[in-house]
Amino acid sequence: MIRIALLGSTGSIGTQCLDLVERFPEQLAVVGLGGGRQLELLAQQAKRFRPRLVTCQDEGDVARLAALIDNPTIAIEAGAAGQRALATLDEADTVVAAVVGYAGLVGTLAAAEAGKRIALANKESLVAGGELVMKTLAQSGGEIIPIDSEHVAIHQCLSGEQHASIHQLWLTASGGPFRGADRDALAHIGVDEALDHPNWSMGPKITIDSATLMNKGLELIEATWLFDCPPDQVQIAVHPPSLVHSMVEFVDGTFKAQLGAPDMRSAIAYALSPSPRLPLRAVDGVRLWNPLDQALAFEPYDRSVFRAPDLCRAALRQGGGTPAALNALNEVLVAQFLDGRRSFLSIVDDLERGLEALAQQALAGDSLEAIVAADAAGRAWAG
Amino acid sequence: MIRIALLGSTGSIGTQCLDLVERFPEQLAVVGLGGGRQLELLAQQAKRFRPRLVTCQDEGDVARLAALIDNPTIAIEAGAAGQRALATLDEADTVVAAVVGYAGLVGTLAAAEAGKRIALANKESLVAGGELVMKTLAQSGGEIIPIDSEHVAIHQCLSGEQHASIHQLWLTASGGPFRGADRDALAHIGVDEALDHPNWSMGPKITIDSATLMNKGLELIEATWLFDCPPDQVQIAVHPPSLVHSMVEFVDGTFKAQLGAPDMRSAIAYALSPSPRLPLRAVDGVRLWNPLDQALAFEPYDRSVFRAPDLCRAALRQGGGTPAALNALNEVLVAQFLDGRRSFLSIVDDLERGLEALAQQALAGDSLEAIVAADAAGRAWAG
Repeated sequence: MIRIALLGSTGSIGTQCLDLVERFPEQLAVVGLGGGRQLELLAQQAKRFRPRLVTCQDEGDVARLAALIDNPTIAIEAGAAGQRALATLDEADTVVAAVVGYAGLVGTLAAAEAGKRIALANKESLVAGGELVMKTLAQSGGEIIPIDSEHVAIHQCLSGEQHASIHQLWLTASGGPFRGADRDALAHIGVDEALDHPNWSMGPKITIDSATLMNKGLELIEATWLFDCPPDQVQIAVHPPSLVHSMVEFVDGTFKAQLGAPDMRSAIAYALSPSPRLPLRAVDGVRLWNPLDQALAFEPYDRSVFRAPDLCRAALRQGGGTPAALNALNEVLVAQFLDGRRSFLSIVDDLERGLEALAQQALAGDSLEAIVAADAAGRAWAG
Repeated sequence: MIRIALLGSTGSIGTQCLDLVERFPEQLAVVGLGGGRQLELLAQQAKRFRPRLVTCQDEGDVARLAALIDNPTIAIEAGAAGQRALATLDEADTVVAAVVGYAGLVGTLAAAEAGKRIALANKESLVAGGELVMKTLAQSGGEIIPIDSEHVAIHQCLSGEQHASIHQLWLTASGGPFRGADRDALAHIGVDEALDHPNWSMGPKITIDSATLMNKGLELIEATWLFDCPPDQVQIAVHPPSLVHSMVEFVDGTFKAQLGAPDMRSAIAYALSPSPRLPLRAVDGVRLWNPLDQALAFEPYDRSVFRAPDLCRAALRQGGGTPAALNALNEVLVAQFLDGRRSFLSIVDDLERGLEALAQQALAGDSLEAIVAADAAGRAWAG
C-alpha cells in the first residue's frame, strides 16, 4: 500500500491523482491533502478520503475549511507551515508535489529533508531549487520520480541502466499550438489561441509555457538535475503527436523510448507505483495508443523564433540563482499575458531582457534564502 | 573483464563478436573458440586471440587444425563433445551461442547446465528446446541474454520491470524483401531475390526465414520462452526501416521501445555487456540513427499470404516436440530452396503439410532424447 501526502490536491494533477486513488484502493491511499483557496473542493476531497491532515493556503481560511469538513479527527493547518507539515507527515511514504509554480518549492524541500519518495509535478522546485533539492535528497536518502510526461519517460528508459551508459537525453516537444510559426504570425496571438494546446489538457500557466517552448526549456533545466546531465547532453526534438514521450540515447548508439497516448494519468500512475505498474489500461476513458494507427516523426524547431529553450540553457550555464530568477521572470510575464496585459511575443522577449539585466547581480542558489532572493529579483524586474 | 567462450566463431555473429573483442580489449576477452569446417579462418582466429580451447565440427579435422594453429598450449577438440567442453569451460563466464540452426542446441544446453550466462544468437535452441533449456537454467542459476535484435530490444525494455507489468510484447518485422506481395508475385521468386534483404546483413538461412516471415514466427516462439508469455501475448507489427527493434506494452497502457540503426553489433555488444554499455558509438563504421532523419511507421502484414507466424503459434499451442519438428522441417525446406530444389512458396506450404502429417504423432519435448526424436521426425518428413 502506497500512502500519499498530496500537495496541490485541487489542481489538474491533484484531482487526477485522487481519481487514481479511488480506482486503485488496494494499492493507493491518501493520508494528507493540501489545497490553495478552493475550499469547497478541498473539503469535498477531505470528506471523501478522510486524510489525517488537510492544509490550505491562508491562515484566515482555516475556520471556514474546518466548518466545511466538519470532522474533528482531521487536522487542519495553513500556509508554508502547513505545507511543511503535510510534506513531512509520518504516515506518508510518498509525497506528491503538485503545487503549481514557485510556491511548491517549500513543500518539495521539506519532503526532501524528511527523506520521502517525491512524485514531482512541480518542475519549478528543480528549476529554481535544483542544486539545493538534489543536495538535500543526497543527504536524506529520499528520491524523486518525476510526474512530467517527458521526465517520467526518461526515468523509465533509464530503469536498470548505469549513468555511464547515457550518451544524451532527447526531450520530445509537441511544438505547441504555434509549431512552425514565424514571429509575424506570433505578433497578434490572443490568450484563447495560446491556451488551445493540441494534445495535452493542462493548467493555464503550463499551457502558455508550452506555446512559447519555455516549458521545454524549464524541462531541460529539470532534466539536468534529475538525471545529472549537463545542458549540452539534453536534446529537444519536436514530435507533434506527443506519442513518444521522450528518449535516451546510449553510448552504444541505441535508444530507448517510452510511448503512449498523451494521458497524464499514466505519468502519475507510474510515479506513484513504478513496479508493478498499475493496470491503467482497464480504467474507463484512459487513452490508448495502437502502434498500427499512426507514424512517429521528429523534427527540429526554429531556435530563432522560439528562444526560450536556449535562454534556459544559458541560465543553467550561468548557474547559481539564475534559473530561479528566470523561473520567476517567466511566472510573472505569463501571468501578465493571461491577464491581457502584454503580448505573446513579449513574454520571451522580456524574459531575455530581464536575464540580461539580472546578469549584473551574482545570484546564488545554494540555500533557500539565496533562492528566495533570486526569485524576488526576477519578480521585481518583471513586476 | 567478460570472458567469452564463442560457439560459432566463423559465422556472421561470431566474426562480429570477435571484432568487438578486438576493439574493447579492456572489457572483453576470448577464452574459447568453436567453429565448423572453415579451418583456415578458425586457425587465424585462434592465432589472434590465443584461447585455451578451440573446437571444430569433425573429429577428422583435428590434426589439420592443430597443424594450422601450430601452438601446443591451445587444446583442440571436435564434435558434440568439443561443443560441450567449450560451453562448460571453467574460464568462461559468458557463452556466446552463435552456431547456426538446430546443431546449436547441444552447446546451449551444456552451457545452461553449467549455469553460464548465455548470449544466445542460436534461436533454434529455444524454438526446439525451449522447455528443456529454461527448466535447466532455472535449476542451474544460469541466464540468457538474447542476441536477436528483437529479443534483446525487449530484454532492454523489460530492464527494471516486473513480469506482472507486461500487457503484451510487440515484435517488429521489416517485412523482408517481399513485403506487401501476394501469392502470385511470390510464385517465381529465385534464390538471389530471396537473399536480398532490405536492412540486415545476415547468413543465408535466416535471410530466407526473413523473406517467408518464418523468422518472425521462430522469434515468436523464442519470445514466449525468454519472457514467459503465451503466444497470444506476442504481437507482430511490420516496420520497414527496422529502426524500432521491438516494444513492450505495459498494463498501464504505455510502451517502451528500443531503437537504433540496424546493426547487429549493438545487439551483440549489449548481450556481452549490458551494464555499463560498450561505447559502440565511437567505433568506425557503426551505423547510427538520428531521430530527425526518418519517420517511424508500423503496419500489419497479410496473414493469408505469410502463413509462417501463425504456423509457429499453432506449433506452440500443440507444444511438446512440435516446435522442434517445425524447426527441423523449416531447416530442411529452406536448404532445399537454397539448393534450387524447391520453389519459394513451397517452403511454407510444405511446412504446413508437414505439421499436419506430424500432428498424428504425440511428439514430446521435455528431454534431449525427445527433442532429438522430434527433430528427426521433421527431417524425415521433409527429406
